[in-house]
Amino acid sequence: MHKKLVGACLALTMGAGAGYALNAMAQAKPEDVIKYRKAVMNVQAWNMRPMAAMVKGQQPYDAQLFAWYAGVIQQTANMLPDAFQAGSDKGAETRAKPEIWSEPAKSKAALDRFTADTAALVAAAKKGDLEAVKGPFGAVAKNCGGCHEQFRNK
Amino acid sequence: MHKKLVGACLALTMGAGAGYALNAMAQAKPEDVIKYRKAVMNVQAWNMRPMAAMVKGQQPYDAQLFAWYAGVIQQTANMLPDAFQAGSDKGAETRAKPEIWSEPAKSKAALDRFTADTAALVAAAKKGDLEAVKGPFGAVAKNCGGCHEQFRNK
Repeated sequence: MHKKLVGACLALTMGAGAGYALNAMAQAKPEDVIKYRKAVMNVQAWNMRPMAAMVKGQQPYDAQLFAWYAGVIQQTANMLPDAFQAGSDKGAETRAKPEIWSEPAKSKAALDRFTADTAALVAAAKKGDLEAVKGPFGAVAKNCGGCHEQFRNK
Repeated sequence: MHKKLVGACLALTMGAGAGYALNAMAQAKPEDVIKYRKAVMNVQAWNMRPMAAMVKGQQPYDAQLFAWYAGVIQQTANMLPDAFQAGSDKGAETRAKPEIWSEPAKSKAALDRFTADTAALVAAAKKGDLEAVKGPFGAVAKNCGGCHEQFRNK
């Protein structure tokens, strides 16, 4: 359900005309959206880190912990439509590029990919096997860099 | 599973001696933990707001959206052990009171309550009925104020 909902809302958020976003009804100020966006990015980075360390062998693989972090990352996909809602391209310091909103098909594709990849990671993590999560984790991690490359100013 | 895991980890995090926390293996710096904690609090506040507005009749009740936000809030309970891990009582500006760590039974009770109340809200939200969510939402909201009253400096 979440995936469909994200897709639907993102289509509305970033689609032509409607300008609808999850939290737009609450009339969030652009500066608050930008602050929220940074908070979400912080939460994502934080929860990626221990998984990366396990995948790289820098800390012991703990299947339960890994699955927990994977679940948190999956949930953050649901936060992104709000965090990138229309009108938050300015209002406070932000590195977000205008393309996020001016090229909605591209942003939607990026979110769809992230949503799908995090779901695959959660499924893989349930197996409790380090080898099984390496590929799916790499795929999720690629989304971070890919999105930043495409949609974030240096 | 999450509830049990949260309980177990919190017991370890805040319990006597062990000093274990979810992300402690990754050796997070106190200032990074504090930054993460603030990000998590921002995410919680953000996602409570539209539910509050619906409950108060300030924006139309949308069952799907409400359920989405309830799910996000539930997931944030899983972030709290990391966000309050041992050693993050100082290292950057923080309003967190030392009691969080010096009175682990109290903090554990607070997290257990929040975890249970968010689960109840998610269950209620599935009914798709505004009247059904009012009580459970109020219970979750009480956790915010209650924890701040007990564990946050003015």
